[in-house]
Amino acid sequence: MNFASDNWAGAMDPVMEALARHNTGIAPAYGADPLTESVTRQFCDLFERDVAVFFVATGSAANALALSAYAKPGGAIFCHPDAHIQVDECGCPEFMTGGGKLVSVPGPAGKMRASDLWDAIAAFPDGVVHHGQVAAVSVTQATESGTVYQLKEIQALKHVAASRGVPLHMDGARFANAVVSLGVSPADMTWKSGVDVVSFGATKNGCWCAEAVVFFDLEAARGFEYLRKRAGHLFSKSRFVAAQFDGYLRNEAWLTSAEHANAMARQLAVGIQRAGGRFPWPVEANELFPVLRRSTFERLQAAGARFYEWPAKSLSAEDAPGPDEVMVRMVTSFATPPADVDAFLAHVAA
Amino acid sequence: MNFASDNWAGAMDPVMEALARHNTGIAPAYGADPLTESVTRQFCDLFERDVAVFFVATGSAANALALSAYAKPGGAIFCHPDAHIQVDECGCPEFMTGGGKLVSVPGPAGKMRASDLWDAIAAFPDGVVHHGQVAAVSVTQATESGTVYQLKEIQALKHVAASRGVPLHMDGARFANAVVSLGVSPADMTWKSGVDVVSFGATKNGCWCAEAVVFFDLEAARGFEYLRKRAGHLFSKSRFVAAQFDGYLRNEAWLTSAEHANAMARQLAVGIQRAGGRFPWPVEANELFPVLRRSTFERLQAAGARFYEWPAKSLSAEDAPGPDEVMVRMVTSFATPPADVDAFLAHVAA
Amino acid sequence: MNFASDNWAGAMDPVMEALARHNTGIAPAYGADPLTESVTRQFCDLFERDVAVFFVATGSAANALALSAYAKPGGAIFCHPDAHIQVDECGCPEFMTGGGKLVSVPGPAGKMRASDLWDAIAAFPDGVVHHGQVAAVSVTQATESGTVYQLKEIQALKHVAASRGVPLHMDGARFANAVVSLGVSPADMTWKSGVDVVSFGATKNGCWCAEAVVFFDLEAARGFEYLRKRAGHLFSKSRFVAAQFDGYLRNEAWLTSAEHANAMARQLAVGIQRAGGRFPWPVEANELFPVLRRSTFERLQAAGARFYEWPAKSLSAEDAPGPDEVMVRMVTSFATPPADVDAFLAHVAA
Amino acid sequence: MNFASDNWAGAMDPVMEALARHNTGIAPAYGADPLTESVTRQFCDLFERDVAVFFVATGSAANALALSAYAKPGGAIFCHPDAHIQVDECGCPEFMTGGGKLVSVPGPAGKMRASDLWDAIAAFPDGVVHHGQVAAVSVTQATESGTVYQLKEIQALKHVAASRGVPLHMDGARFANAVVSLGVSPADMTWKSGVDVVSFGATKNGCWCAEAVVFFDLEAARGFEYLRKRAGHLFSKSRFVAAQFDGYLRNEAWLTSAEHANAMARQLAVGIQRAGGRFPWPVEANELFPVLRRSTFERLQAAGARFYEWPAKSLSAEDAPGPDEVMVRMVTSFATPPADVDAFLAHVAA
Repeated sequence: MNFASDNWAGAMDPVMEALARHNTGIAPAYGADPLTESVTRQFCDLFERDVAVFFVATGSAANALALSAYAKPGGAIFCHPDAHIQVDECGCPEFMTGGGKLVSVPGPAGKMRASDLWDAIAAFPDGVVHHGQVAAVSVTQATESGTVYQLKEIQALKHVAASRGVPLHMDGARFANAVVSLGVSPADMTWKSGVDVVSFGATKNGCWCAEAVVFFDLEAARGFEYLRKRAGHLFSKSRFVAAQFDGYLRNEAWLTSAEHANAMARQLAVGIQRAGGRFPWPVEANELFPVLRRSTFERLQAAGARFYEWPAKSLSAEDAPGPDEVMVRMVTSFATPPADVDAFLAHVAA
Repeated sequence: MNFASDNWAGAMDPVMEALARHNTGIAPAYGADPLTESVTRQFCDLFERDVAVFFVATGSAANALALSAYAKPGGAIFCHPDAHIQVDECGCPEFMTGGGKLVSVPGPAGKMRASDLWDAIAAFPDGVVHHGQVAAVSVTQATESGTVYQLKEIQALKHVAASRGVPLHMDGARFANAVVSLGVSPADMTWKSGVDVVSFGATKNGCWCAEAVVFFDLEAARGFEYLRKRAGHLFSKSRFVAAQFDGYLRNEAWLTSAEHANAMARQLAVGIQRAGGRFPWPVEANELFPVLRRSTFERLQAAGARFYEWPAKSLSAEDAPGPDEVMVRMVTSFATPPADVDAFLAHVAA
Repeated sequence: MNFASDNWAGAMDPVMEALARHNTGIAPAYGADPLTESVTRQFCDLFERDVAVFFVATGSAANALALSAYAKPGGAIFCHPDAHIQVDECGCPEFMTGGGKLVSVPGPAGKMRASDLWDAIAAFPDGVVHHGQVAAVSVTQATESGTVYQLKEIQALKHVAASRGVPLHMDGARFANAVVSLGVSPADMTWKSGVDVVSFGATKNGCWCAEAVVFFDLEAARGFEYLRKRAGHLFSKSRFVAAQFDGYLRNEAWLTSAEHANAMARQLAVGIQRAGGRFPWPVEANELFPVLRRSTFERLQAAGARFYEWPAKSLSAEDAPGPDEVMVRMVTSFATPPADVDAFLAHVAA
Repeated sequence: MNFASDNWAGAMDPVMEALARHNTGIAPAYGADPLTESVTRQFCDLFERDVAVFFVATGSAANALALSAYAKPGGAIFCHPDAHIQVDECGCPEFMTGGGKLVSVPGPAGKMRASDLWDAIAAFPDGVVHHGQVAAVSVTQATESGTVYQLKEIQALKHVAASRGVPLHMDGARFANAVVSLGVSPADMTWKSGVDVVSFGATKNGCWCAEAVVFFDLEAARGFEYLRKRAGHLFSKSRFVAAQFDGYLRNEAWLTSAEHANAMARQLAVGIQRAGGRFPWPVEANELFPVLRRSTFERLQAAGARFYEWPAKSLSAEDAPGPDEVMVRMVTSFATPPADVDAFLAHVAA
């Protein structure tokens, strides 16, 4: 019953098989190999247009490097206060952008609202040197609250970004879970809704280490290879990342994997709700944040369930846990056994 | 007949097997897993003392991050002009150190000499704010010229570094090849000779992507985890790097692999010399830089041999290629088939 | 009737006279001159202890460089959301600290409260690499709201900072106005209350360009000269800054100057209040933020008064300007003519 | 008899008078004042075209910020090994450019030769990510060897820079001395010869602290105000720098001043040569590097002459000082009294 995180799993079979399959012979280093070329074409097919694809080692690197392509002196990047770039990357975006500032735009359920973004961005008027300059807007899809931006919400944020001539970045560490949740195409969720660059994460959803920065803004992609190399993120045996993506994308393995994770999360949500747990935020991807009775929480821990108590400070007073309650975070993945879900729910209902 | 580079190979069997073996079950992310702990102990055994081990994605990252642990404002890092950090890392060390300066100390056969280091370092007297401050000395072992520093040479450089209170860093992208070449222990070649931190490379010698920063200077290692994370180099599924190292180190696979590569290089060198090629630098590891007759060079290319013509500008006038000659670089690896060596030599001798 | 800013004035007579007095003969460059030594002694006298003094060009440079002496990878610096370092320095602190993050700790009247700082800092637990690490706490004295921290308030913030082993920095762009307002000694307001380093501003209060970073933490001051030089902030003819400080500090010119500015502000406040204006924040230094009727505001502008309408978003609903009101910022200085104050108040009362 | 450096002098009378003249009344801060506007027009007149002018605090800041406007990831800046940016700025250019690399191009008499630049720049081919990318070429005019580039030499370097699409920067810390030496117009020596941006120094030649970055490349100047502010180099009371330039430029005070300095240098050179001293480099501006007999050197020091022994390592074997000789650096300035020159020469001849 391990719901600690989706990065506690290993790699799924199609990825392992692809790694073995492509580990033969000699191939040029640094991404000049035929497999990397082939995977790049798969990305173009996936997004139904030309894209520029760059592999990097981690999701943090993908985010920070993507944003660094738009860095400006005194640059301000707007994101939700719970965004991974704001909370969980140890200053990597600030470092890679040469000292950018991440401006928090709070909003319910882990999402920025366009009207709030509008207000926040207005504090950085063009031409006022003291406050710095607007550099980018970044959304997390799926969000850190387990919710998913609707296409209209993304488009509304893009509208604000575009009004100031800055790009919209998407942190897609859980890109697959969001696509599956919305039932839209990758193209719909990205460039057709105004996204300029996406951190396309595959690690959480079944790879060992496969993250890509995918640019729709091909102009901004020029020179990106230097940003990546300068940060030590150009793999010499780059084809082993390509191999993972090959296994991941082929036969829609990535969608199958995310569907499973999302289904496990939904099933948990239904069961927990039925047993009296409540959810401040809807469960729309593979993370869920139930508020449980403390006694239930302790019973589950005693039974060996792994998951984290979670700070609830962004909740309104009426949603916040009461004195006998606790909010927790649970994460499902491609590797979550249905039996674990059943076992967990049995303990909840006990 | 591919001698283009040692990073054109895939992964060796023990590494692939270890990856498969460890891809089971659930494990904590970010290096808190038992396998990472076990591999760390293997490193301590290997070096016969306590060491601090940090996995990173690439050799460039290992070098730049290791040096960043010793960064100072206006810091100067002394290295050979052909060092990878000086020539091949797109400013990664400068970037990671917040603007450090790499000062070239030329020397024959890819090695710095202590006396030249002494002179170079003297241009940065303590307390003169204008020139900046001495930050570190970095050696490449094996060197970019296919040679290997003798222990006494390392110790002599350490002596100079220590006279200014700065650390000695070793770029060990080809660490195994050097250990095997010298026939010494890893401890002898590093901390017993004064090395404070080593970039321990395993990718070229048989892994997919396995590089580690290994500190003997445990004080300097404190805080390094923040430097790594800030640069986006903390893998979430860190155990997949640990798994590679597990396969690499176990049963001395890494030494066997390097011995093969070095043997192939020696065999090539003997054959080429016999056929009239000459070597400005001794062949001491798995890179060789023969000067060939241009006709021979062209015949080999026509036969499908892959290797690079190499700039010879660091050679003395008497060593430099004549008008009908060309200097080339050839690299062998764990994966070099003896048959390729034979075939190549047959073409050379033809 | 110019109340736009205290940096619209020129230099006061004692400063101009000192510049002329010291512009004779030849003196070593880069701060090795006798005048700089003498001024350093004056600073030691002023603070009743040994201090390390470094001149820099601007208040932004003073703040950012002071904080850079305590920079850490992933470092978080805690300050009020209205702090100059957070709002008005175009990312200079982020840049100079290699990508530090400024974490806002809101509080009434431009001041952080210790309890809020406690909560904010708790989100950065030691040893959790993802969130980064606590680096420093910075207070602005006098604040950007025209208020002044009481000594006990400074001490309480220091207590929190010390609990995490980080320094307390004071942005003293209006240091003199605060000292005069509190009626305490410079020592009391700084190191005796726990301040480790202060940006000692003299430009607004009567110099041309005279800012100093003054360290009480002499250990941290070691190496600072390299941080300053690396940022291009070491003046060659450093004695011209020393000369300004000489004129500024001698005969308590700096206190006389600040007393005048504060008195002008108090006089304005009393008159405005009498005429029906109200003050969300107390007027404790040389800035005042009255809420005026819009008709009054427009009448004053028509009469040629220079001052800025000011965003009131940090005010509570009950303090915020109503539909017919406007909040403004007015700043007085050593150069504010009493006649201007009288004229302004006459217009207000009209 | 002080020939230690031209920054040991104070400010010349026209500058002091201008400071006093403009220290009246109230003016907008941060460069929005009428005086700054007027001085900007003077710069346009001076250069016979539209230019963008930015005041900064120091010559190091001017150089580093000018180069930062052209920074690229992995960027290489080509300069002479004795250039101030390479030797005397404590890594300021590297820091401001986010980790740029300064590549030394040696050449006789402190000057780069176009053919050598060509070779050096060729090591950074476009599109090879490992080596980084060509970012800029920087010349020092007058050079650190007291020589002056002829217009044709500047044009030849520009030709190389332009072949790679990068700008030509001029470090004009001694701009006036070079203009006077060549007898050409400022326009001739800069944009008409291909210079894109100049660090226009006035401090050494008679100001307290007046340095400007002057862009002829108006496109590159866009956004520069953010680079300056982010580095803490935007003065609040900016008009005091403008005032210095006003005094400096008006009535050609700056040329008169440089003519005096150069004349003093020439007079010294003639006298020293007559007395048996020799000059490895021609004396073309206000610095001279005679090789003296050690006995002469000691006699001069005993007589109280201030000047520095200078490292001669860039000299050829035949030019280098013999065992009984010493190379020294002497610098003259606007403030050098003719009587000091006479006295010095009397001691030399003794």
